[in-house]
Amino acid sequence: MKTNKLFPQVEGFLHGGDYNPEQWLDRPDILKKDIEYMKEAGINTVTMGVFSWSVHEPVEGQISFDWLAEIMDELYENGIYTVLATPTGARPAWLDEKYPSAMRCDEMGVRNHHGVRHNHCMQSPEYREKVRIMDSALAERFAGHPGLLMWHISNELGGYCYCDTCRKKFQQWLADRYDHDIEKLNKAWWTTFWSHKFNSFDQIDPPYKNGENCVLGLNLDWKRFSTWSATDFMKFEIDTLRGAGATEPTTTNFMEMFYDYDYHYMKDFIDVISWDNYPELHNNWQTDADQLLERSFNHALFRSMKKDKPFMMMESAPGLVNWRPFNKYRRPGMHELISMQAVATGSDTVQYFQIRKSRGSSEQWHGAVIDHIGTNDTRVFKEVAKLGADLKTISEVAGALSDNKVAILFDWDNRWAIDDAWALAKDTKNFDKTCMSIYNEFMSLGVEPDIISSDMDWSDYKIICAPMLYVLHDGVGEKIADFVRNGGQFMSTYFTGYVNKDLLANLGGFPGDGLSQVFGLRSEEIDTLYPEDKNSISIIDKAGKPSYSAPVSDYQELLRDVTAEVLARYDGDYVAGKPAITRNSYGEGFAYYVACRTNQNDIEFLYREMLEHAGIAYTKLPVGVEKHTRFAEDAKYDFYLNGNTEDVTVKDVAGVELLTGENVSGTLVLKGYGVAVVKR
Amino acid sequence: MKTNKLFPQVEGFLHGGDYNPEQWLDRPDILKKDIEYMKEAGINTVTMGVFSWSVHEPVEGQISFDWLAEIMDELYENGIYTVLATPTGARPAWLDEKYPSAMRCDEMGVRNHHGVRHNHCMQSPEYREKVRIMDSALAERFAGHPGLLMWHISNELGGYCYCDTCRKKFQQWLADRYDHDIEKLNKAWWTTFWSHKFNSFDQIDPPYKNGENCVLGLNLDWKRFSTWSATDFMKFEIDTLRGAGATEPTTTNFMEMFYDYDYHYMKDFIDVISWDNYPELHNNWQTDADQLLERSFNHALFRSMKKDKPFMMMESAPGLVNWRPFNKYRRPGMHELISMQAVATGSDTVQYFQIRKSRGSSEQWHGAVIDHIGTNDTRVFKEVAKLGADLKTISEVAGALSDNKVAILFDWDNRWAIDDAWALAKDTKNFDKTCMSIYNEFMSLGVEPDIISSDMDWSDYKIICAPMLYVLHDGVGEKIADFVRNGGQFMSTYFTGYVNKDLLANLGGFPGDGLSQVFGLRSEEIDTLYPEDKNSISIIDKAGKPSYSAPVSDYQELLRDVTAEVLARYDGDYVAGKPAITRNSYGEGFAYYVACRTNQNDIEFLYREMLEHAGIAYTKLPVGVEKHTRFAEDAKYDFYLNGNTEDVTVKDVAGVELLTGENVSGTLVLKGYGVAVVKR
Amino acid sequence: MKTNKLFPQVEGFLHGGDYNPEQWLDRPDILKKDIEYMKEAGINTVTMGVFSWSVHEPVEGQISFDWLAEIMDELYENGIYTVLATPTGARPAWLDEKYPSAMRCDEMGVRNHHGVRHNHCMQSPEYREKVRIMDSALAERFAGHPGLLMWHISNELGGYCYCDTCRKKFQQWLADRYDHDIEKLNKAWWTTFWSHKFNSFDQIDPPYKNGENCVLGLNLDWKRFSTWSATDFMKFEIDTLRGAGATEPTTTNFMEMFYDYDYHYMKDFIDVISWDNYPELHNNWQTDADQLLERSFNHALFRSMKKDKPFMMMESAPGLVNWRPFNKYRRPGMHELISMQAVATGSDTVQYFQIRKSRGSSEQWHGAVIDHIGTNDTRVFKEVAKLGADLKTISEVAGALSDNKVAILFDWDNRWAIDDAWALAKDTKNFDKTCMSIYNEFMSLGVEPDIISSDMDWSDYKIICAPMLYVLHDGVGEKIADFVRNGGQFMSTYFTGYVNKDLLANLGGFPGDGLSQVFGLRSEEIDTLYPEDKNSISIIDKAGKPSYSAPVSDYQELLRDVTAEVLARYDGDYVAGKPAITRNSYGEGFAYYVACRTNQNDIEFLYREMLEHAGIAYTKLPVGVEKHTRFAEDAKYDFYLNGNTEDVTVKDVAGVELLTGENVSGTLVLKGYGVAVVKR
Repeated sequence: MKTNKLFPQVEGFLHGGDYNPEQWLDRPDILKKDIEYMKEAGINTVTMGVFSWSVHEPVEGQISFDWLAEIMDELYENGIYTVLATPTGARPAWLDEKYPSAMRCDEMGVRNHHGVRHNHCMQSPEYREKVRIMDSALAERFAGHPGLLMWHISNELGGYCYCDTCRKKFQQWLADRYDHDIEKLNKAWWTTFWSHKFNSFDQIDPPYKNGENCVLGLNLDWKRFSTWSATDFMKFEIDTLRGAGATEPTTTNFMEMFYDYDYHYMKDFIDVISWDNYPELHNNWQTDADQLLERSFNHALFRSMKKDKPFMMMESAPGLVNWRPFNKYRRPGMHELISMQAVATGSDTVQYFQIRKSRGSSEQWHGAVIDHIGTNDTRVFKEVAKLGADLKTISEVAGALSDNKVAILFDWDNRWAIDDAWALAKDTKNFDKTCMSIYNEFMSLGVEPDIISSDMDWSDYKIICAPMLYVLHDGVGEKIADFVRNGGQFMSTYFTGYVNKDLLANLGGFPGDGLSQVFGLRSEEIDTLYPEDKNSISIIDKAGKPSYSAPVSDYQELLRDVTAEVLARYDGDYVAGKPAITRNSYGEGFAYYVACRTNQNDIEFLYREMLEHAGIAYTKLPVGVEKHTRFAEDAKYDFYLNGNTEDVTVKDVAGVELLTGENVSGTLVLKGYGVAVVKR
Repeated sequence: MKTNKLFPQVEGFLHGGDYNPEQWLDRPDILKKDIEYMKEAGINTVTMGVFSWSVHEPVEGQISFDWLAEIMDELYENGIYTVLATPTGARPAWLDEKYPSAMRCDEMGVRNHHGVRHNHCMQSPEYREKVRIMDSALAERFAGHPGLLMWHISNELGGYCYCDTCRKKFQQWLADRYDHDIEKLNKAWWTTFWSHKFNSFDQIDPPYKNGENCVLGLNLDWKRFSTWSATDFMKFEIDTLRGAGATEPTTTNFMEMFYDYDYHYMKDFIDVISWDNYPELHNNWQTDADQLLERSFNHALFRSMKKDKPFMMMESAPGLVNWRPFNKYRRPGMHELISMQAVATGSDTVQYFQIRKSRGSSEQWHGAVIDHIGTNDTRVFKEVAKLGADLKTISEVAGALSDNKVAILFDWDNRWAIDDAWALAKDTKNFDKTCMSIYNEFMSLGVEPDIISSDMDWSDYKIICAPMLYVLHDGVGEKIADFVRNGGQFMSTYFTGYVNKDLLANLGGFPGDGLSQVFGLRSEEIDTLYPEDKNSISIIDKAGKPSYSAPVSDYQELLRDVTAEVLARYDGDYVAGKPAITRNSYGEGFAYYVACRTNQNDIEFLYREMLEHAGIAYTKLPVGVEKHTRFAEDAKYDFYLNGNTEDVTVKDVAGVELLTGENVSGTLVLKGYGVAVVKR
Repeated sequence: MKTNKLFPQVEGFLHGGDYNPEQWLDRPDILKKDIEYMKEAGINTVTMGVFSWSVHEPVEGQISFDWLAEIMDELYENGIYTVLATPTGARPAWLDEKYPSAMRCDEMGVRNHHGVRHNHCMQSPEYREKVRIMDSALAERFAGHPGLLMWHISNELGGYCYCDTCRKKFQQWLADRYDHDIEKLNKAWWTTFWSHKFNSFDQIDPPYKNGENCVLGLNLDWKRFSTWSATDFMKFEIDTLRGAGATEPTTTNFMEMFYDYDYHYMKDFIDVISWDNYPELHNNWQTDADQLLERSFNHALFRSMKKDKPFMMMESAPGLVNWRPFNKYRRPGMHELISMQAVATGSDTVQYFQIRKSRGSSEQWHGAVIDHIGTNDTRVFKEVAKLGADLKTISEVAGALSDNKVAILFDWDNRWAIDDAWALAKDTKNFDKTCMSIYNEFMSLGVEPDIISSDMDWSDYKIICAPMLYVLHDGVGEKIADFVRNGGQFMSTYFTGYVNKDLLANLGGFPGDGLSQVFGLRSEEIDTLYPEDKNSISIIDKAGKPSYSAPVSDYQELLRDVTAEVLARYDGDYVAGKPAITRNSYGEGFAYYVACRTNQNDIEFLYREMLEHAGIAYTKLPVGVEKHTRFAEDAKYDFYLNGNTEDVTVKDVAGVELLTGENVSGTLVLKGYGVAVVKR
């Protein structure tokens, strides 16, 4: 497979992270020490300028980047590259003082006061003008700098603004979406219900907390608009940089399964995907291995956004974070494991927040490579330096890509719509967890899925799972039918195909949009269970007899008109004896329907069957072990990650383990939290 | 007993519910199918127009009811009557846009934005003018229509408004209440405390969340005012309809033990009582039978408001609702049981929200007779149709009334005052539950109580229980004394007679207003227990010896000056040996005082004794079974409802069971969730 | 030791409390009865005028105190003295109506409506002017009245105001604090982080909830400013009284470990310390004895503020309060015990809220000496009267002082900073509880600590414990070094010396400011544990072997560079084998460092060792028993308090027990809830 290096000028992987020297300009001794330590730790990149506006432009119009240029030069001379951020993540006090429209309004429409970070109106013309001036100046000064790797647009874009400017933009956006025909909108939102009809687009408000928040189409379109608005702001920054001569690639740092915006929309407007990875390790509700699987799912989500190049883990915490309910240190070895997991899943970078701890303010206790003690012999520093060395050892892997044949559908608007639906139970909808449980089941079989949207290209995949695909985008019913007809394995669950993209119920039975034919059934009722309620299903063996029983929780559908083959039936409750899992032969493929919530490992037979149908090899891995593969032109790199504290043995492994240089043939022993990179 | 049919033009019971054809005006095929299905399900009434304002008057001043008239005619031709609503439950967008005063202000005095439902200021002159025009037009068009059964005023009136108009109305209302003498108010509210005195009525604000919310008299009068305000709005609508020629009866749909307004005040201004019944069935904290008893209590509450005619169950959910924390389907048979319970307790209607599901917006997953699948063979449809048939079978019962000799006092302002009192414990006051526990105890003995206010006529009753009658309205002390003196059995509990109607403490010991004499005791302390605290009482047998012990929870009073006979004494804690339950012979009757919280079934002897004193027959029913009786001129109808999933046998039943037509003599077997209607 | 009586004109102790006769001016019979009952209960003081503004000045400018003068005279003639309050705890309605600036703004900057109590802007010029007029008039009328004991400034000062006046005052206060140099502030607050730099002081807002609330230095300075602002208001009232001729001492009633203000700052501006003591007795999470210890800690905190004179328990509840989640009566005997505890710890008063219950409003169910029943034979009245008699019996103790050699450091800004720090765990920081656990451990050994600030004089002490001294004020590092160098025993814990007074991290390792030398170690990591995490330490005996093991919870530091002697080592987790408790010999004294959270009684050996080093005698007391000592010129008074319901025996007691007059030699038997005052 063809490899694709993000930054040819850098040998191997990027290792580094956020660096804020502007906090220490009066301490040249510290700045000097920082470079010395970075080199010692194998750090070859820093991210600068993320929150530097008030240093760049301490007084309106007085812009100077000399401090930054000097440091960039110095770093470059020491072999350290720079990712340069636009400073729009936070604004100086003078800006909000003079241009109050730059500050957001809250969900009652009340303007915030100046402060904190994510607090700017993305549509404020006054704010945009100041951004334009700043970003142009930055690009004019630094574009083409030999130490400059890329542009980092703003920081962790997030949140909604309910100001009047945004309200009007929303109205325009709606008018465009509904062809300037208010009746189209009224129909899509079903506004006749509760007398919610609008006469014109300019009557429509955002879903204020103390206003119209029960029209579900409005709520959903507001989230779509807010995604558009943030993207529009991001594009404005990119265009500004480009207009001022910047040619380096762009990114913005995404966040873990971030709820506010549809990243599948945003992803197309930047060059490289990057995200900030903050695991909650050694916690009190799951094993480390389960926490690692959540990370793994996120890596897959971001990797799948641009499959033709590696992604970047733009931030992660050396040691610990400081903003969790419990802030616990990574135990020895975990830093290597969690960092290598990023590389294993397709990242070409291990980047940190932060190189040196801030002496004051709210993140002064957030982990960093260099601590307040100021030495290079702390446990954390030494683990970072070890990783730096290991990354060099495996530098040939950089640029290698993934190549998966299984995908899970994860649509942002489906997620929003499920959560906002007045249906099921308030606290057990758990769409995200359901997607992750399917991911985990494949991973336990040594098969790594991609996480994609229903609108992306499915042609690489042989198996697609679409749990709780409540919202069907236009054409997706037919797309699924085609996929199965052409030999694909497609698995759905309860709560699938209930509504169209406007959230209007599909008439005639679920799943709608033609899917009843594909699955060979219709769903009549979706029943919600209390945690105390007990029901189960019996899996039917090939002889047509019940073989074993698996518990049902949360949701159970009552199916009807079932022409598909029945693989499991309900044991009890009022649905006793009714079909619970079905398989429909459709064209060249199979469509599976799981009508109730079960543990995925209780129905592992389904996964094995799909993999066998698809001709994908699998092996059950030891509990707590992950396997990921990256493909280069002439080599494959299998990463084995042990999330257990105990040693484990993996069978049937052959190749050269790059970190030790040893040949493995047959059995691979992984120490607790151990990592192996086996080249085939 | 004389029967009284609500709608002589309808044979038997009303069966039907909310219908919103305006959502489907572009789908005549669906509207046609609806009528077909309704007839199939035995539906003879629909409620229309509840949220139709934006269809009635899409643009200000352009009112047209043609769509509605056509459908009403069509329905009538098919034997389906209409309950016609005024559309004031929600306002069109244009109305709020032009008349912002129509929108409510929240409890900080901030005006809401347009949206949702219950969001109108009931005192806004601009809004009232639009309502006047709309309601007049409605009445002019539809009054006298042969298919029109009644007028349904607005929808589920609720909530408070803190706008300036309401603030001024409140001041006027207070001035009227306190004879335009601010010193009377100051005294009633005891404003010298914390320097809260007012110089004039126009200084008084509503109890803003960020203002004066610690003057308990103010808080209580605000709730009384808000009841008045909602009633005033309701009367304005009724008067408008009447002024425009409407002669049909009126109702407004009340809600389950609704907290916001004193329905005992509102009830006098409408013709028929109706309410919306949404049980939380098959839940995880109680048995179905216990949930049914809560329904039963509510039915009794609403039935007792107008004892001379049946009430209406205006809304209920076919299948399930969609706005609970858990939205679970009614299990097979429950639809019949819960619907028949309404009839058993005195309703002449079984009405639903809704006939057909809305395709979009927040209630698209609320149960309906006709589902999105659009067929007449769903489980829910079939259960509705079966009920429709059964209602026809027992149609002779329609118009029959109840005739109970036991009553429980349930005053809204007592309830509010208890909850607002800075006393006892924050979370265990449980006035409602206490009333219900007494109701349940009588029900277990086959005796059905009414639920009335302290101000209503007591002359029908032989036993009255007044748990936690903290607030004594003027004259109620003497009314109780008279009741007992004339031979009544009266039971009170701890926390009785502490304050007068203004919430001023009764001086000289509790219960005040002369009741110490009636009960033969004074209470010195009311002590609050933590859930972990243990105490008990010993019941004293006729020989004066302790016979058995019953646990005490939450509250225990320390009595003194006890001249009454002691029926139980405390076992432990600092009140050990002191009287806990007493009986005072007073005139011809007996006054019982239960000084601590116990389980009612632990003191069943009290109930048996009262019933025996009163000459009321009783039989202990099987657990989970309810019995209700309706009386016609020449027949009695005993309804037996089995809340268990198992079959039960009831003894000593004789008569004709109407649903099966079989004679019962001796033993009645009820299937799980079964219903029997035995005519005597 | 020299005694110091607060009020020489009163014989013995003050006994009395808040009295609100203005609520009963139309009931002279009740006022007359009150005096009769007060005398019967041994009451010799009342607090009046606390909420009397609307009676003093019912209409603006019409001030009359005649009602009060008459009652003061009458009381004085009956031997009852008056504590006279300025009425600024609540404002009349007319005042807010005319001067809205008197009302506070909330944390979003929104002005409150009129109402409740603590709702005035302490910086409003209009409000101050009305206060000036009122307080001047009060002093002119009552200063020098023979019945007047002291001036009670306002009531339970508390809360923050976010109005524009306060915003500007805050800016001025900051300018003064930072020498009118904005760069000093920027550096102190580390504002370069997140681009938070300010150009001038007038850009700075309060930490609005919807504004800048992440700059920790700003948050802390805002609390310091709010302390200053309340103190400034209090001083304004005192100055006004003094200016109008008042010469009597002043106080303001503090509250239990009150969070809003730094009482160590406020204490210097009043003459006498008083506080309001509302225990939560007989609760469901601790023993009575443990609740008593919390009271004891608070008494110690307030006593230590002015060690040269007794303090006052200004309020406490006869019977019960009415504003807790559970409002339970004090069991028989508890009133005496809890009241005597105040005297034992150094109070010369037992005062109540309230003499007579208010007939209405929010505190009508708060305990009082005289209840609504209006008799003098209630349980509560009789317990109050017994205490009154007992206080007379021990009146010789009045004026005696404490003399302790152990102190615990409790800095308000350390407490605030710990809670606001983004570090450790959200819910387990528990600074207060940690201080109390150390207090309790000394108390169990019969040694009573003082509770002081790091800035107070330490010269009386031989042992100082400074748990979690996260913030080091300027000079405190050196002060600790001096203390130890000169022979003191000093104990610190994890999370010590991390930041300076501006919250900037101390560079070079913790504890900073030179303390690494004093303790002989540096801390590299502070790790946070989940409640489920298990670790322990092993205590090392004198032979250098592990002797026993003690569990670790919440926090564990990883120490390095340890030159101190190791007293305990970690057993497990990644810190296994590392030092956990150390002792460093430094100059003439010892510095102890406890690097993890343990139960104090698990490390009692440390306390015994410190006490032995310091030459302080100790005896282990029976569980649940407290011992306190007050010292007179020629006598010592040992108070023994039994928090158990069972009798206990204390050994090695000798002297005269004052309440019984009996000689004790050897063994003292205390009944359940019993009290003994043994004179030596």
